[in-house]
Amino acid sequence: MQRLRRLRQLGLAYLAFPSAEHSRFSHALGALAMGTRAFDQLLRRNPNSFGDSARAAYQRRLLRAALLLHDIGHGPFSHACEKVLGIPHERRTKDLIALDEVSEGIAALEVERDDVLGLIVGDPESPYPALRELVSGPNLDADRMDYLLRDAYFTGVATGRYDSEQLVASLRLFEVGGKLALGIDRRGVVALESFVTARYMMFASVYFHHTTRMFERVLHEALGEIWPDPHALDEVSEFMQWDDFRVLDRLDDIQTPAAAALRNRIRVYALAAEFNAERDLRPFELCDAALRERFGDSNVWADSQSQLLHRLPFGLGGDATVWVDGPNGPVDAREVSDLIAKLGGKAYWRKLFVRREAVDVAEARRICASLSG
Amino acid sequence: MQRLRRLRQLGLAYLAFPSAEHSRFSHALGALAMGTRAFDQLLRRNPNSFGDSARAAYQRRLLRAALLLHDIGHGPFSHACEKVLGIPHERRTKDLIALDEVSEGIAALEVERDDVLGLIVGDPESPYPALRELVSGPNLDADRMDYLLRDAYFTGVATGRYDSEQLVASLRLFEVGGKLALGIDRRGVVALESFVTARYMMFASVYFHHTTRMFERVLHEALGEIWPDPHALDEVSEFMQWDDFRVLDRLDDIQTPAAAALRNRIRVYALAAEFNAERDLRPFELCDAALRERFGDSNVWADSQSQLLHRLPFGLGGDATVWVDGPNGPVDAREVSDLIAKLGGKAYWRKLFVRREAVDVAEARRICASLSG
Amino acid sequence: MQRLRRLRQLGLAYLAFPSAEHSRFSHALGALAMGTRAFDQLLRRNPNSFGDSARAAYQRRLLRAALLLHDIGHGPFSHACEKVLGIPHERRTKDLIALDEVSEGIAALEVERDDVLGLIVGDPESPYPALRELVSGPNLDADRMDYLLRDAYFTGVATGRYDSEQLVASLRLFEVGGKLALGIDRRGVVALESFVTARYMMFASVYFHHTTRMFERVLHEALGEIWPDPHALDEVSEFMQWDDFRVLDRLDDIQTPAAAALRNRIRVYALAAEFNAERDLRPFELCDAALRERFGDSNVWADSQSQLLHRLPFGLGGDATVWVDGPNGPVDAREVSDLIAKLGGKAYWRKLFVRREAVDVAEARRICASLSG
Amino acid sequence: MQRLRRLRQLGLAYLAFPSAEHSRFSHALGALAMGTRAFDQLLRRNPNSFGDSARAAYQRRLLRAALLLHDIGHGPFSHACEKVLGIPHERRTKDLIALDEVSEGIAALEVERDDVLGLIVGDPESPYPALRELVSGPNLDADRMDYLLRDAYFTGVATGRYDSEQLVASLRLFEVGGKLALGIDRRGVVALESFVTARYMMFASVYFHHTTRMFERVLHEALGEIWPDPHALDEVSEFMQWDDFRVLDRLDDIQTPAAAALRNRIRVYALAAEFNAERDLRPFELCDAALRERFGDSNVWADSQSQLLHRLPFGLGGDATVWVDGPNGPVDAREVSDLIAKLGGKAYWRKLFVRREAVDVAEARRICASLSG
Repeated sequence: MQRLRRLRQLGLAYLAFPSAEHSRFSHALGALAMGTRAFDQLLRRNPNSFGDSARAAYQRRLLRAALLLHDIGHGPFSHACEKVLGIPHERRTKDLIALDEVSEGIAALEVERDDVLGLIVGDPESPYPALRELVSGPNLDADRMDYLLRDAYFTGVATGRYDSEQLVASLRLFEVGGKLALGIDRRGVVALESFVTARYMMFASVYFHHTTRMFERVLHEALGEIWPDPHALDEVSEFMQWDDFRVLDRLDDIQTPAAAALRNRIRVYALAAEFNAERDLRPFELCDAALRERFGDSNVWADSQSQLLHRLPFGLGGDATVWVDGPNGPVDAREVSDLIAKLGGKAYWRKLFVRREAVDVAEARRICASLSG
Repeated sequence: MQRLRRLRQLGLAYLAFPSAEHSRFSHALGALAMGTRAFDQLLRRNPNSFGDSARAAYQRRLLRAALLLHDIGHGPFSHACEKVLGIPHERRTKDLIALDEVSEGIAALEVERDDVLGLIVGDPESPYPALRELVSGPNLDADRMDYLLRDAYFTGVATGRYDSEQLVASLRLFEVGGKLALGIDRRGVVALESFVTARYMMFASVYFHHTTRMFERVLHEALGEIWPDPHALDEVSEFMQWDDFRVLDRLDDIQTPAAAALRNRIRVYALAAEFNAERDLRPFELCDAALRERFGDSNVWADSQSQLLHRLPFGLGGDATVWVDGPNGPVDAREVSDLIAKLGGKAYWRKLFVRREAVDVAEARRICASLSG
Repeated sequence: MQRLRRLRQLGLAYLAFPSAEHSRFSHALGALAMGTRAFDQLLRRNPNSFGDSARAAYQRRLLRAALLLHDIGHGPFSHACEKVLGIPHERRTKDLIALDEVSEGIAALEVERDDVLGLIVGDPESPYPALRELVSGPNLDADRMDYLLRDAYFTGVATGRYDSEQLVASLRLFEVGGKLALGIDRRGVVALESFVTARYMMFASVYFHHTTRMFERVLHEALGEIWPDPHALDEVSEFMQWDDFRVLDRLDDIQTPAAAALRNRIRVYALAAEFNAERDLRPFELCDAALRERFGDSNVWADSQSQLLHRLPFGLGGDATVWVDGPNGPVDAREVSDLIAKLGGKAYWRKLFVRREAVDVAEARRICASLSG
Repeated sequence: MQRLRRLRQLGLAYLAFPSAEHSRFSHALGALAMGTRAFDQLLRRNPNSFGDSARAAYQRRLLRAALLLHDIGHGPFSHACEKVLGIPHERRTKDLIALDEVSEGIAALEVERDDVLGLIVGDPESPYPALRELVSGPNLDADRMDYLLRDAYFTGVATGRYDSEQLVASLRLFEVGGKLALGIDRRGVVALESFVTARYMMFASVYFHHTTRMFERVLHEALGEIWPDPHALDEVSEFMQWDDFRVLDRLDDIQTPAAAALRNRIRVYALAAEFNAERDLRPFELCDAALRERFGDSNVWADSQSQLLHRLPFGLGGDATVWVDGPNGPVDAREVSDLIAKLGGKAYWRKLFVRREAVDVAEARRICASLSG
């Protein structure tokens, strides 16, 4: 757990937002607190859904343990690390939870290790579907409820706040298709709208910030130099030795362009164009092709942020919606809220970057401007 | 001006939000302050658009005078009063500004009365189109910039806040079709999105709140009883005698159901159904028809909020958009922001109320529920 | 109760702080909410002090009723009104609670009228000493806990905030001298310090603001003109007709200097000197004497704010302290906190005003400056 | 500079306040921003005090450079590090600024290295006494103005906030004894009071928090184990290799009780008694003596926080006061504000801790309680 104190919640975002230095550790405590409030609210409203008081107490402990541990599998700089090493943090979580040290900690909390794991990795067979949604669900999870507020606070982005008190107070359990599902009371629709909007705002302002994205790209290159063998950290004991600061230490010893760029915060790439309002992808594709033709593939980087998109407010499709109490039973949030319906569906935010050392940035921007006209 | 101290900015909304007791007077000061900040920002960025320093100083005084006076034509409970008396507040403004007392005040500010009036009523011939947008424009006016923040603060609705500092800092003037138009720098797009979203949230939470709407409906009936002759207040000198508190005083003397309902805060109507996510009007129309058939026209009230809709975030159509700086000149905000494009266009929020004394509310709700399926 | 909607919590302070338009009504709701939280906290911590569950439920209802009604006896512009009419609001409360209408309201809440009255007027024989402290005590009353936060919020004075959550969470009941007394847990000392400091800040910034004080002085004169007979409002039925707005209406009909000054917000007095740091009264007395000698008694006003001083943070003397949990039983807050000890004791804030129309203000200030040197 | 990103502003305080993870780097940026605002305000008010525009521009650059670099000499865990290694951060600053790399950076900012150093170390001969006060003065320095707000924000201690906008707006320069001195306008007195109070609150809540103090004590022991030779880091090049995270790494390799305690966050000491309201030191001395007699010197730790006391709000003695504009020239802030006078002077906060492994904590507390009675 203490390793999380040395993983920054927002990776390199502190290069664009200097105060974004908060760790995954404080986020884990926050998610635990948020989830506890959500659980107590659900228990008050739907006491029968949790069995007798011993069963309810067990589920409360279980939820808290899972939220505390939900990010334990993250490596340094999370997504960049995963891409280089190829092991998703969910699998890491499994390995780490199997460690004696962690197992003993979980046992001391009087919960079953497998139950904890099921909630964190989102096991569809978990006997606790509502808790699973609170831990790893795509919409109303305590993880997201905390990190949105926390990231907004520590970056200072005021528009990332939402009405968390009202949202938690409106949480309800419904039976949908014979299973328990998380949802909200009709009075919570505006709070849910504020939650969905806050997600949108945080993506637009912070998570997709071009400075952060650019340095993450460079970091990706540098990590490949630190770990030329992608299996270097396969061993859990080795993996656990690493955190953000050790990576940064190691970069000091490496004499490659990427490591030097990070060390000296050199802006290797420049933003040529961004497309955050595309309803079709053609302008993006046209610019991308034109830049590549003019400057060569190796000098153009098209950032489609694909790894982040699953965290977007648009993940309301399929059975992954939020249910809202209605006079005839629960209904899809998109039916009762135009705003949510409109912000749902697929998004296509893209950014085009060019390498400064090889490209005339002004020319690249002119090319894109003439094509986007 | 001092009369505005006795007109509540949000009319009867204090019946739903007890602390919403702020007056149009404090709003006028706030709009003046917001507009001054906006002006200084524009002058810094586009100094040539304001002529020499004497011309610029005149325009600054003019803008401030107009914002201070922009609500002077409002009567008690604004919209309800207008509907009963039939004289729009724009015409009242004209009459009031013509009064000696006000004219002298304006002259003391060293600005032309007609220039002030042109900005407030949105005269298309005003020689100051950018200032006119700041006073009475449909989108980036200082009026709205202040009242959204202010109403959010005094109701306590956290989600109504937006990033006003960033929005003001991004204001720019553009030439569009040979005329000066107000717009924003590309860096302000997220702030503009937060502004548009805050408007949406305030409408959803406050301005269309069913309790407020219901009491405004009852007030409308009661005002007809206070002023059986709709021309009673045609004379400006008479009009100026009236404010919220005098209306409330008068209600104490009237023995009609509407006056009694307001006096004792009796909920005359009950909400049978609301439609805040309709992309088509059919479910609303079906319910409306069914309720009327079952309970009679006089016991059903369909609130389409038509008078408020022009203040909605959806007023971005036609030439009424916000311009955003682009590499090839200013572009429509809807082109650079999916969020704004999605929240633009027409809205159809509707509510159906029934009279409690004559209608079985539970039955009315069942009827609507069965039709909304 | 609804009359409180037309009494501003801060009287004329809106002339210095334009947004300070909040009413005693919203404060009454806030005090009720704050007191309920305090009660629930005490019940959780000291369940045995409240008798069986029926007794505890009764006391909860009683406390809520008393807080809701605690300001019912205030007339328009509270203190000014009391000074002119000579009837303290405590006696008014007694008369008002005796009214059929109010008695019935209280009976409907299932509490005894006399119990309510005992809490509001601070009856030393009240069988509920802890509740009495929460309603009308000199330090930890829910009245003050709400109005400090509320006045700070609506004036926008940031330094008036204190840590109310922590303060409420630290509330405890102690037995002191055989009676229940309100106090705090040792962990709440810093929150109590912030509470005491916030009081100090609000007095310095708002309650003693020279503009407000000056207009209150003028109002006092004007009220004497509205009610030349000090017994004019002795009858409760007459008293109840009056609120802030009726007083302001009446001022429009009176042609005296004081009424005209208020109507036109003319600054009749100018501040010649203020003494907010006197540990002895001599500099004040010297200036006061010199001004009176030079300009005459009728042109000098020495504001000692005596009526407000009982609300000051210095009311910790005698048995009116706050008790703090200690290893050997409860101790006086001044023993565990230097800050509280230092802010306790008597205060001597004074202001000297002169009448502008008769006095050369600059000369008056020079006189005071030369004596304060 | 980048090393500051790896020094936490509040050292080990994150063990008591989990979100207090902000670095000295973000504080340096904040101090620079705060100081710039202060400078621009002073320049607006006292333009003649800064010479011609080139001189003023130089001083602005100088102030910004000094604030950016003012903490460059801090080692890991600042005070603990200094105590073990014996080299004060002021001397380190001198050494570091002499480095080629830093000198070049300073030269690129077009300011003189010696001028920068003079401001940071508070050289009494500095030709820029007002700037020196803004950088390293005992009261109105931009360093403190930033860190109080920042530490309050990142710990979440609401009572640590003060009215910084008003304080900065009231800054003025005065001539006192033939020299420029920093002070405030009379309207800023309440803001200054809020500043002084916020300092008090932050010391009471955060800087002297017993958990933090205890771990700092243990850290002190552990550092002695990491650097058995106190001269180990005398060389600047060696010193610069160290940051918080390297210290924590090293603790993992050491098998001593102190290192193990920190690694596992074991509470080695327990609080036996604290004395934050002593006007005399006798109760503290009695308890200290009694504990030492009963449990032995090595098991008792008397924390007098002497190293921190110079940062206390009480540093207003001698010529180190804040000057306030008065009718007869600048006066000492303690003369115009009772609050500041009362919070000035010497403080004697003390805490007594005992070693848990060797002492019966309950007994120790009983001993102290009986003596403090």
